[in-house]
Amino acid sequence: MRYKAIVAYEGSLFSGWQIQVNPNTVQGHLEETLSKMEKKRVHITAAGRTDRGVNALGQVFHFDSDLKIPLEKMALAINNQLIDGIHIRHIEVVDDRFHARFDAKWKYYRYSIECGPFNLFDRNHVLQLNKSLDIEAMIEASKVFVGTHDFTSFNSNTLVETPNQVRTIYAINLALEGTTLHLDYYGEGFMRYMVRMLTQTLIEVGMHRLTTQDVIRLLEAKDKDATPYNARPQGLTLVHVEYDKPFEGN
Amino acid sequence: MRYKAIVAYEGSLFSGWQIQVNPNTVQGHLEETLSKMEKKRVHITAAGRTDRGVNALGQVFHFDSDLKIPLEKMALAINNQLIDGIHIRHIEVVDDRFHARFDAKWKYYRYSIECGPFNLFDRNHVLQLNKSLDIEAMIEASKVFVGTHDFTSFNSNTLVETPNQVRTIYAINLALEGTTLHLDYYGEGFMRYMVRMLTQTLIEVGMHRLTTQDVIRLLEAKDKDATPYNARPQGLTLVHVEYDKPFEGN
Repeated sequence: MRYKAIVAYEGSLFSGWQIQVNPNTVQGHLEETLSKMEKKRVHITAAGRTDRGVNALGQVFHFDSDLKIPLEKMALAINNQLIDGIHIRHIEVVDDRFHARFDAKWKYYRYSIECGPFNLFDRNHVLQLNKSLDIEAMIEASKVFVGTHDFTSFNSNTLVETPNQVRTIYAINLALEGTTLHLDYYGEGFMRYMVRMLTQTLIEVGMHRLTTQDVIRLLEAKDKDATPYNARPQGLTLVHVEYDKPFEGN
Repeated sequence: MRYKAIVAYEGSLFSGWQIQVNPNTVQGHLEETLSKMEKKRVHITAAGRTDRGVNALGQVFHFDSDLKIPLEKMALAINNQLIDGIHIRHIEVVDDRFHARFDAKWKYYRYSIECGPFNLFDRNHVLQLNKSLDIEAMIEASKVFVGTHDFTSFNSNTLVETPNQVRTIYAINLALEGTTLHLDYYGEGFMRYMVRMLTQTLIEVGMHRLTTQDVIRLLEAKDKDATPYNARPQGLTLVHVEYDKPFEGN
């Protein structure tokens, strides 16, 4: 049977999602736990990789399993075996053809920035900028990115591995919660470092080191060397991957 | 010169405040960093110890220093040398007779409980009960503890080490923030495990496993074996230690 699972993890504890030489990855821990429970090699497939330090509340993966655990107890059974910092929030049975990567309709990433004093408890989930930002200027500049654009200047995928770097961003919403600024990105898909590069560029605008005109120029450059801005991974969280409904605003 | 410092720390990363055989304590890290900077042995004195797993946003300590760093840069200079998870929020020069423990007028502890779904990012700062509680019943029972009482049943200090176990609690406030319940305790001083034992007792009331009458009986027992309830340390945070004003409500 094929299962779809929603998983949260604390990025600071792991070396990103994908299995690599370093075994301390989220995929590595999940596959190890599931394989131990199944007593055979289990492979899982995520909606997308997240980089070292990036958090998730709503990463999605699929896997095939013969476990004879009642569905309502399955997440609990797996969580009891999992390392601290990874938590399965939900599991459901899906069609055998369901694919966590190919079937994703859109994704929602949140980048959070603390503009007030240093917040110790949030330091791995919220960028500790600890400076105030011109949010109105950032909102104006964020509109440059919304829509369908060639984001060559704003990601680290090479043009060889990803020849088509045109993507659609449905919405970017900025919201202040106390002294924490949230930048919410909704899009069909994001390339490597894309949300973080967009975010650091908007932070530069918020600190009056770039203007909206500069941002337009960077986007139009379609140049891998145009943008030196890349916000630290701690502030970024993959919040939701949607499979059912097209994006309809929020 | 004598300095007063306000420090925040993440309890899950350390073996409590006080130096012991295990060097990974908050006091140990702070003294090591300060001693390295001063190039001589520095001793610090806290408002009070916190146990393993207990967090702080407003722990206070004093120390004597000959450092020639301008006061406004001192916290930053120390934080740059400190281990992740400990953060000095404020430093000021105080009278040479100031004593962080003896001069404290009252303390404010917060115990936080997640009544909604498991919250991964908050798991080291908020008890993950993930059940709903009868908050009205807890508020009623909490009034039993407010005022001056013999708290022999509600702490782990022996009567040999602490013959007088009468303490005054000025207020206990319960407040719901989303699905997180905060229990705020204001008192002249709390003995070991006291806030956690009071909290678990109130949780039992909130789950209808104890009544207010049971709580009165436990308090009146003045018996070290009366109360088996002790909430886990993760939910507890020392928020503030007051030196200047008497408690006047909040």
